[in-house]
Amino acid sequence: MEVIYGVNPLKEALISGGGGLTRIVIARGRSESAIREISTMAAKQGIPVEVRERAFLDELAETSSHQGVLGMCKPYRYQDLDAVIANRHPSCLHDLVLILDGITDPHNLGALLRTAHCFGVNGVLLPEHRSASVTATVIKTSAGAARYLPVARVANLARALDELKKRGFWIFGADAHATQSVSVPDYQGAVGLIMGAEGKGMRPLIRKQCDFLISIPMLGKIDSLNVSVSAGIVMHEIRRKTIWHNS
Amino acid sequence: MEVIYGVNPLKEALISGGGGLTRIVIARGRSESAIREISTMAAKQGIPVEVRERAFLDELAETSSHQGVLGMCKPYRYQDLDAVIANRHPSCLHDLVLILDGITDPHNLGALLRTAHCFGVNGVLLPEHRSASVTATVIKTSAGAARYLPVARVANLARALDELKKRGFWIFGADAHATQSVSVPDYQGAVGLIMGAEGKGMRPLIRKQCDFLISIPMLGKIDSLNVSVSAGIVMHEIRRKTIWHNS
Repeated sequence: MEVIYGVNPLKEALISGGGGLTRIVIARGRSESAIREISTMAAKQGIPVEVRERAFLDELAETSSHQGVLGMCKPYRYQDLDAVIANRHPSCLHDLVLILDGITDPHNLGALLRTAHCFGVNGVLLPEHRSASVTATVIKTSAGAARYLPVARVANLARALDELKKRGFWIFGADAHATQSVSVPDYQGAVGLIMGAEGKGMRPLIRKQCDFLISIPMLGKIDSLNVSVSAGIVMHEIRRKTIWHNS
Repeated sequence: MEVIYGVNPLKEALISGGGGLTRIVIARGRSESAIREISTMAAKQGIPVEVRERAFLDELAETSSHQGVLGMCKPYRYQDLDAVIANRHPSCLHDLVLILDGITDPHNLGALLRTAHCFGVNGVLLPEHRSASVTATVIKTSAGAARYLPVARVANLARALDELKKRGFWIFGADAHATQSVSVPDYQGAVGLIMGAEGKGMRPLIRKQCDFLISIPMLGKIDSLNVSVSAGIVMHEIRRKTIWHNS
């Protein structure tokens, strides 16, 4: 069970309508206009609203800074690897699966899901450990993309890569030190694209499993692009070569 | 004078060293370990630390949620249009200036500065009104890029575009509805690239001044990419065509 708390996060979840809210809880004695508004919005959407003691909210939110209102949401429904592989976009000749190795910041994960969806990827693989999971913050940051995009959590990412290879995928890893530019490969065939953690990149074990390492040519004095910007550039290049055929 | 407040923002500004902190103020009576740590870090960097009444901090921070500590920073030093135009990257044959029309979110502005710097743009133009300015949050989100990249604020963006055209720039506008793909133009010559606000895009008056409108071909069900991802893809394409020459 996922909990969202605070006036603004609740309002946003109610406006987007896709937060999977199942129940709203208001602290006893709170009746100011913002809380009333949330209550009215919930009622219109048929979401039950109940009034409880403040301590009950403190416990659910695991904090006292919930502003007297919280919402309970259905947990995100992960898919399995097969469902991700099966979800090829109808405009695409080839499968494209995004694999995230060690993305721990929920805003980065949300931005990556948004970007991935815009380029019609089949779906996303996340490791179960040392990775952000799909929380309410991630869904919000994804601008709704998390609702459309299958995400699978795998216990062992190395084994999932072996499985993709067995099924004919070529594994590309984005690596700032790679000598081959992202613009060089033709990306013909099923592609598994690995993006590593900002700063650290992919784990060495995962890097070793890549068939190709690619980098984005850059000019600046700072380390690197944000990971969702890098991912956007790589996915744009893959689609440019395989769908739009612009040189 | 820019004010940063709260334990974590202050620590981050001290760690990055580039926040331009000139003074730290601690509320009387605060001596817990986090505050001591900030005080020690400041002393090592030769930044004066003073103790004042809480009310003094409330007034400077314009809020009471400063956790008893704040820092004062030098204001960001904007450049003028000439300085931006003069700052061509030594690896580039052509000028590239990024123009932001109505980016109001400081996190988006910071991400855009980071991305722009990674692609070696000359600098960035912002309108004085209806735009985020370069605050401490923006500098932090830019991952340090704001320190390297000249940013000019212009009173009238339309007039600045006229000036760029007079100096031989071609104006490209990123527009989700444009029929020409970002991958089609050859970008030979000086380029002014306009990115509009997320959701709304460029203002109609600004759009009219573009020599070319370009879009990023996409597949998903949601509106659009984040503006810093879009900007990254366009700048990557410009550099691919004019520096790296990959097809």
